[in-house]
Amino acid sequence: MPLSKRIETAMGQALSLSQDPLAPRKLASALHYATSPGGARIRPTILLSVAMSCGDDRPALASSAAAALELIHCASLVHDDLPCFDNADLRRGKPSLHRAYSEPLAVLAGDSLIILAFEVLARAIPDHPDRAAQLLLSLTHRSGMPGGICAGQGWESEAKIDLSAYHRSKTAALFIAATEMGAIAAGHAPEEWHDLGALIGEAFQVADDLRDALLDEQTLGKPTGQDDLHGRPNAVAQLGVKGALDRLSQILAGAIASIPSCPGEAALARMVSHQAEKIMPSVPAKYRV
Amino acid sequence: MPLSKRIETAMGQALSLSQDPLAPRKLASALHYATSPGGARIRPTILLSVAMSCGDDRPALASSAAAALELIHCASLVHDDLPCFDNADLRRGKPSLHRAYSEPLAVLAGDSLIILAFEVLARAIPDHPDRAAQLLLSLTHRSGMPGGICAGQGWESEAKIDLSAYHRSKTAALFIAATEMGAIAAGHAPEEWHDLGALIGEAFQVADDLRDALLDEQTLGKPTGQDDLHGRPNAVAQLGVKGALDRLSQILAGAIASIPSCPGEAALARMVSHQAEKIMPSVPAKYRV
Repeated sequence: MPLSKRIETAMGQALSLSQDPLAPRKLASALHYATSPGGARIRPTILLSVAMSCGDDRPALASSAAAALELIHCASLVHDDLPCFDNADLRRGKPSLHRAYSEPLAVLAGDSLIILAFEVLARAIPDHPDRAAQLLLSLTHRSGMPGGICAGQGWESEAKIDLSAYHRSKTAALFIAATEMGAIAAGHAPEEWHDLGALIGEAFQVADDLRDALLDEQTLGKPTGQDDLHGRPNAVAQLGVKGALDRLSQILAGAIASIPSCPGEAALARMVSHQAEKIMPSVPAKYRV
Repeated sequence: MPLSKRIETAMGQALSLSQDPLAPRKLASALHYATSPGGARIRPTILLSVAMSCGDDRPALASSAAAALELIHCASLVHDDLPCFDNADLRRGKPSLHRAYSEPLAVLAGDSLIILAFEVLARAIPDHPDRAAQLLLSLTHRSGMPGGICAGQGWESEAKIDLSAYHRSKTAALFIAATEMGAIAAGHAPEEWHDLGALIGEAFQVADDLRDALLDEQTLGKPTGQDDLHGRPNAVAQLGVKGALDRLSQILAGAIASIPSCPGEAALARMVSHQAEKIMPSVPAKYRV
């Protein structure tokens, strides 16, 4: 089964747990809206790729882990789009959830998706108590406080930001969860997979910074983007466009080099390169060498 | 150790998991603010009382379950107070979390508390895989979709409300979690404890309706309260004050009668009566017999 099919099947099974003819219809529909059609499903793709590199001896467990991680990611997008955060009108080419439904339903949909993620993993405990416990703890650590994506968002309310903690928790945390949980689901130690997730997360951050700067430059004819506007730390502001492009290449090379020795090492390196191509912004001619 | 001390100790241990010198300070402080000083801690008190009636052979597990349940309750209060829901300025006699901190920090604090609740239970899996799995599933079912408190709030966005599903999920769900989880933590079957939780939840609903109607009558000199104002279903509107008082007595008698035969049956009946006294609104003279 191709990875994308495997992820959508797992997402469908997870969502079905939240549906019932006796449930409030709008909230039930909002949960579907928040999770489909999916974006690139990058985090569950990385999770399953790592699981496969580690032998994927419990494929149903790995698929559940992939769905749980993606549910947390979808929940974070719904809450991040709320008026009190990004106040975003659009998400994945359609109205954001609070625009399409309402703000109360967006808060509740996010809450429900978080809870659903843990239900999916809790159901795996009877068959795989040790691995399920580790999966649950990896996911809680990488999503909550003090070091998960909630902490990452929380940094934006501080007068003085610890930049390294900010990036590690805001962007990298769910990529670290992806590599850790992929390893755990296949019975491997998560520790040696930490750096791959952290480096992929860092690459995403720099690619995002480049998109933010270049998109604005191309469309508005000036080099200031959203990060600049909000005074947010940004690799382009620090290093310039060429410097940030170099940094991105270095990080990706480091990510590939960090892959632990395993049967699927070469396939995993290809996956990382493939994901990197997808996130690389199109660069105006003047920056090309 | 008195129950209240046991609950505060468990809450303190749970909260400490979310704290770290490297975490964003305001969000870390908001988690304390949302959970202390506690309200009546009724749900964890019921949970531990049921566990003790069932022998409480794994007290650390029962205490963790009590903290997890209270964390979910605290999270729901923070999110329910948000401007898009109740827009409440006060909670437990102090400014609501979004007034004291900010709306972004209130959304994040609620999310973090939900995740923390599941972390507390996940940590219990290695020592008690079977019971921890059941505890996790009871808590996800009673808090998320399709039948937990998220569903209960979700009903308020529907044009046509299924009243029975609304009350069962909005108010009763966490009381059912309290009795079920108390039984599970002590190794008993949760099913026979379901009705006690459901009936306590129903009693709370009617007591709330009475407070809503009577408080307004005493302070504003008219019998219409918030429920009436928002067109919400209300036992007083349906049955009148005397009828609602009778109904409350009947439900409490039913709750006590529903307690399964167990060593701590008498003590548990006393606990229910004691909690009932605390929730009973003070009734104006003209309604007294």
